[in-house]
Amino acid sequence: MTQYRPNRRQMLAFLAGSVASLHLPLKPAFADRSLDNAAALRSLPPDLGAGRSVAVVGAGIAGLTTAWQLARAGFDVTVLEADGRYGGRSLTVRPTDPAYRKFFQDRYGITEASYEDRFAEVDGPEQVCTFFDDGWDPEREEHPQELFLNAGPGRIPSFHVAVLDLCREIGVELEPFTFASRSNLVQSDAFNGGQPVQIRQVKHNLRGELSEYLMQMLDSGAFEERFGGAQSEVFRKFLVNFGDLTAEAGQPGYRATARAGYEVQPGAWQNPGKLNPVFELEDMLASELWIEDPETGALSYFHYNDMREYWQASLMQPRGGMDMIWQHLLRQPLPAGGTVMDLVTLNAPVSRIAETEGAGIEVSWTEDGVARTGSFDYCVSTMAPNLLAAVLHGYDTGLTNALAAVAQTPACKVGWQGKSRFWEEENQIYGGISWTHDIISQIWYPADGYLGRTGVLTGAYNRGAPAKAFGYLSHEERLEAAIAGGEKLHPGFADKVHTDRGVSIAWEHMPHQVAGWADETFETQPDIYAVITDLPKGRLYLAGDFASYTPGWMEGAVRSAHLSAKHIAERVAGGETALAK
Amino acid sequence: MTQYRPNRRQMLAFLAGSVASLHLPLKPAFADRSLDNAAALRSLPPDLGAGRSVAVVGAGIAGLTTAWQLARAGFDVTVLEADGRYGGRSLTVRPTDPAYRKFFQDRYGITEASYEDRFAEVDGPEQVCTFFDDGWDPEREEHPQELFLNAGPGRIPSFHVAVLDLCREIGVELEPFTFASRSNLVQSDAFNGGQPVQIRQVKHNLRGELSEYLMQMLDSGAFEERFGGAQSEVFRKFLVNFGDLTAEAGQPGYRATARAGYEVQPGAWQNPGKLNPVFELEDMLASELWIEDPETGALSYFHYNDMREYWQASLMQPRGGMDMIWQHLLRQPLPAGGTVMDLVTLNAPVSRIAETEGAGIEVSWTEDGVARTGSFDYCVSTMAPNLLAAVLHGYDTGLTNALAAVAQTPACKVGWQGKSRFWEEENQIYGGISWTHDIISQIWYPADGYLGRTGVLTGAYNRGAPAKAFGYLSHEERLEAAIAGGEKLHPGFADKVHTDRGVSIAWEHMPHQVAGWADETFETQPDIYAVITDLPKGRLYLAGDFASYTPGWMEGAVRSAHLSAKHIAERVAGGETALAK
Repeated sequence: MTQYRPNRRQMLAFLAGSVASLHLPLKPAFADRSLDNAAALRSLPPDLGAGRSVAVVGAGIAGLTTAWQLARAGFDVTVLEADGRYGGRSLTVRPTDPAYRKFFQDRYGITEASYEDRFAEVDGPEQVCTFFDDGWDPEREEHPQELFLNAGPGRIPSFHVAVLDLCREIGVELEPFTFASRSNLVQSDAFNGGQPVQIRQVKHNLRGELSEYLMQMLDSGAFEERFGGAQSEVFRKFLVNFGDLTAEAGQPGYRATARAGYEVQPGAWQNPGKLNPVFELEDMLASELWIEDPETGALSYFHYNDMREYWQASLMQPRGGMDMIWQHLLRQPLPAGGTVMDLVTLNAPVSRIAETEGAGIEVSWTEDGVARTGSFDYCVSTMAPNLLAAVLHGYDTGLTNALAAVAQTPACKVGWQGKSRFWEEENQIYGGISWTHDIISQIWYPADGYLGRTGVLTGAYNRGAPAKAFGYLSHEERLEAAIAGGEKLHPGFADKVHTDRGVSIAWEHMPHQVAGWADETFETQPDIYAVITDLPKGRLYLAGDFASYTPGWMEGAVRSAHLSAKHIAERVAGGETALAK
Repeated sequence: MTQYRPNRRQMLAFLAGSVASLHLPLKPAFADRSLDNAAALRSLPPDLGAGRSVAVVGAGIAGLTTAWQLARAGFDVTVLEADGRYGGRSLTVRPTDPAYRKFFQDRYGITEASYEDRFAEVDGPEQVCTFFDDGWDPEREEHPQELFLNAGPGRIPSFHVAVLDLCREIGVELEPFTFASRSNLVQSDAFNGGQPVQIRQVKHNLRGELSEYLMQMLDSGAFEERFGGAQSEVFRKFLVNFGDLTAEAGQPGYRATARAGYEVQPGAWQNPGKLNPVFELEDMLASELWIEDPETGALSYFHYNDMREYWQASLMQPRGGMDMIWQHLLRQPLPAGGTVMDLVTLNAPVSRIAETEGAGIEVSWTEDGVARTGSFDYCVSTMAPNLLAAVLHGYDTGLTNALAAVAQTPACKVGWQGKSRFWEEENQIYGGISWTHDIISQIWYPADGYLGRTGVLTGAYNRGAPAKAFGYLSHEERLEAAIAGGEKLHPGFADKVHTDRGVSIAWEHMPHQVAGWADETFETQPDIYAVITDLPKGRLYLAGDFASYTPGWMEGAVRSAHLSAKHIAERVAGGETALAK
């Protein structure tokens, strides 16, 4: 390799900074003990649990993680799942067509049944998914385009280290999930005549106007005490950057800039394009576009959602569907032979959990219509807290009352198959979410299969009061409402999706989940949270996202599963239970 | 399917808004004629150009797009490429190991040679890429993990409609490119003792503090004239959302919030985690972390880069490398038989382009060491403007002087193969870019291959003055400097990457590209831009990103190619040249 003869003076001038500070005592930007439990579980001897039995109630992410961790340490694990399918709320709805079968996914229906008397006499609709890639040519292409709806969890943020570590260990392939594209739309009947606008317009107009106000305050001397002299100059420079202010007649202010996008894209030769117009601050404030629910005034940030630590602009998803996580968990081999799947009994609802004096913990369930009872050394329940409260026997009423009182959030989703990827072709939307004050609340666009023939939209995703109302509708009425909502964001929506292939789910009516998730219990019901997480209760452990500081996220499921498994392992090993929580 | 009996009152209350406004006259949120040229070209008859010849100079994105469009309309196209490879600056550097060969990629070296006298006596280093997936087991897995460096363009924003449309048409698979993850790091020797911090900390602290100031101004009555009464209340509510302010003793202010991330992640049971500490506004302002180059004070936004329309948080990339675009272009079939690849002659530098009186345009080049000259009906040059200026004969000196004077930006990149994906495991960084005031400027993390065994980092990406200095260094010295820079963001960097497999490129020393790209000529040299884009000049057309409002982006290459091809087609067809620019 021929050597260049560098200009040393120039090189040194530019490198001086680097070299001088190279030996500063640096520490990692991020250090956390979050994975200590996962590491401890990996190092357990494979015969630690020999002769000890554990009942795990529920085959969702929490249940399967607990079962795997304990079974590979030699415990005799029985997983009892009330549903006829694995995964719990981690439900990926796939087409019934055999061309779409994937791993163990052999049940594609959604069966809702109310746990309230309202629907006592009906079983609810059993929906089957009929998404299909009509442009697929089996002669030319091996597989049709993959089409599915993640009806439960749909994304993983980078700080959910336990889920990410689990995916790494069991071989789940991850890819980016785009939470926010600036081409996504926001819509409110109170703004712009009800017509949607690109989120970049509102976002950057607002920033610009705020900067402009601060600049005016600075000029007026209002900040003199804090920002005198040189500091004021730095602040001024900062504001120009922050808000993308442009100088005109010497006075920096917010005018249309490229940040807020183009009405006509700039091209080649002599086509400079045309910037989007500026919205008035008053109109944007009045629109309450920045509030999720103007009815309740809830301070959920709407178009600032991507500022949240768990909803930042770029998240992740398993390639090919969220169910890849539990499908990979099921395939994990065990030291005693077989896989995690062999531990699970489906269609086995638990009706009673009772601690017996010194002799273990008794669990009763139904299997093939036959009532059964077993005695186990330990039980890890991942049931929804209110369902669990109803089956506990002999426990302190403080615990059962607390479990029964956990506030839970209804949550609904609708899935549409597009006749084309019209959101890409017409709106330049590649992934991300559009937001509306309509009852559908959100439309999600797929971050995979870009430029493909078709794709699946999450056509509604609402929570709280709107979800409660939405869930009361019949399936057909939900689809009708979701079309009306889609119409507000994408005119002509009804002609752009296969309306006859729509899927809907109201988690509050799913008989064994009964809600989207527990509210932020630690925050809104701290006394209750303290009781239900003061664990274990004798031989009973609780796992599931409701027993964590990240309710509604798989991270809480995995981390509470780790705590349960580790505590049981330590108890059996006779060591100190000094948990890294 | 069993019907639910919905609660009509509740349903109607929630749907009232939707239904009422369903029939408003909505228009698409985005409408643009940007793709008119692409559509026009697709509809050209396949014999339109029969008997007409076109010389295309350069086999980069602009040249290949032009060649394809004209050849499929029946023109006799000759593409002359000075380099021994296709793609121009769209260079994806891949391992030399045959296991990594992909499509037509058969040349993996980087050969730099200066066009200045400084390096007149050396040819520059020929580097070969030795990335290799050491954990690859050929017995168990079909392919090693894909490892490459996009040494030129690396991402596509959603509003670059012409490139996206091209990818759709020729079958390039796209996936998300994460520009900004909030876990990415920012580092400045003037901040936090030189230690890097997560970008979310600085970003959200600053937002919070700005909001707090505005709130104080509102309280002080400074905004009374503008924000009286109800409006003031709305603004107050908005500020709380914008800055994530929290009330304490009744006074909303910025305190540590989850937006700025956690020092200890929240877990399950009774582990609430711990928020990151708050930085002082003064320290953040003084750090100039929000300015790219404190030396020059350049107002490029640094950690606000993701606000830009072309650098928003979520972009796109071809799956498997940026070279997939030109590789797919090369494979396009032509009506006369063969593919676009058959039109291209490599190692054929053009030395002269001369318009002849009425008889066509003469192009001279070297092929296999032999000087050749051909006469064509038209010529589309995609050469760098200053290189083109040197070969034009008989053109107005206004044009050649303008071309020679186009200011161009040096740009360098370094590629590292990680011994692991330490940025994911240690820093929770999944894609995105970390920023530093060090000469390396940036480190890019791959948005593909998450959780894999290894991966390729862009270990330096600098432009302008730092790139000029960096390019002066030898390859070994560049790697040394890039390690020092990496060390500032990732302590122990030298042990974390395969230092012996580093790749470096200084585009200003690539003999046929001679720069990263032309500066924003339309803005910084408007008179020159007006001259060089007043096209065609007789039978000569210019294409390439330099001849567009998106210099440095493939979009400009494609759109100028479309303009050239469409103008030639219209000229031959004898129609009006009413271009949709």
